[in-house]
Amino acid sequence: MMNKTAGRGRRPGSPATRDQVLEVARRRFLAEGYQAVTMRSIAAEAGVDAALISYFFGSKQGLFAAALTLAANPAQVLGGALAGDPSTLPERLLRALVTTWDDEDAGAPLRVMVRAAAAEPNVGRLVREFVQREMVDRIAERLSGRDARARAGVLAVQLSGVIFSRYVLVVDPVATMPVDELVRLLAPGLRATLRAAGGSPNYPAARQPGLP
Amino acid sequence: MMNKTAGRGRRPGSPATRDQVLEVARRRFLAEGYQAVTMRSIAAEAGVDAALISYFFGSKQGLFAAALTLAANPAQVLGGALAGDPSTLPERLLRALVTTWDDEDAGAPLRVMVRAAAAEPNVGRLVREFVQREMVDRIAERLSGRDARARAGVLAVQLSGVIFSRYVLVVDPVATMPVDELVRLLAPGLRATLRAAGGSPNYPAARQPGLP
Repeated sequence: MMNKTAGRGRRPGSPATRDQVLEVARRRFLAEGYQAVTMRSIAAEAGVDAALISYFFGSKQGLFAAALTLAANPAQVLGGALAGDPSTLPERLLRALVTTWDDEDAGAPLRVMVRAAAAEPNVGRLVREFVQREMVDRIAERLSGRDARARAGVLAVQLSGVIFSRYVLVVDPVATMPVDELVRLLAPGLRATLRAAGGSPNYPAARQPGLP
Repeated sequence: MMNKTAGRGRRPGSPATRDQVLEVARRRFLAEGYQAVTMRSIAAEAGVDAALISYFFGSKQGLFAAALTLAANPAQVLGGALAGDPSTLPERLLRALVTTWDDEDAGAPLRVMVRAAAAEPNVGRLVREFVQREMVDRIAERLSGRDARARAGVLAVQLSGVIFSRYVLVVDPVATMPVDELVRLLAPGLRATLRAAGGSPNYPAARQPGLP
């Protein structure tokens, strides 16, 4: 048949079937990584036709994204950290990031996702678009003054460095550093970036208590 | 035969053969990435026995490391940046990093290496050990005061964030930012980390011109 999904109508599987596929995919991706898992093997284990998975999720990276964003919503976590007093934004961003990624349920899929993003161009594009839209752009909206998007990008560099060092490469001493110490040592760096290029109304030198 | 290399004596191939294998391996790894390339296919293309490659390089990751560290020696680049006036260490580290990774010849193998490190545990271990020994430990040696190794680790987080954002995920605006702007916006962050936890004799607040 030319189009395997056409003959199935618009609702070829129940929501329960979709959840079952996601559950299998999630477990397999977490255990084996993105590259080793095939759509065919997930279909076999879930007891469904591989074409049904394509119908639901479009592609392997679509399934991957759907399966691995169940436990934590990074955009929501970031949104929560962005709200509040601008003067403590660095501490909130770092604490939200480390708390989420340290958490076994929320962090494991994120680690698999970012490892796959480094090795697989299709996954890399998904993560790149997410970081640009949900991280850089949304931080930039909170900043005023010159170079808001550039400063937001350099802030995201430092956050992504935490992800890469602590969770991907697992480099000591940062990989085993208590969250309080990591926040204490890195928050001044984030704050300096927010204030670089002459600072902004949100980050005037005189209104930052405790800064040198 | 039980041990394929034993029958070949201690010098089964000339240095020219070794160089030829490295040249093929380098080109293939750069074009296809770590996972897609097999020892067997490199041996075939170089016109040598696969056992000879094992004899020379021990394993696929040994060959990978040897093939991809020809153009740039990251330890040497870092050593050059570490020497000099402590007050401009952040700028030197950032400029050395970005200049090396931006360079087509030097940067391409580093990008392949770090992408492989994220996805392949064996390569990840190589890169992790390198970062700990050649980056964190050597930066820590240059710092005095409290928490020298912790601060060096957090500095390495910021440098690794540049690698991850600009060269692995390729996230804008940092991916396309001119080196001068990246240094201008991120160097204050590195300096703040060097001075975190009360600073050190190398980074007293009063001796940092231009800081707020």
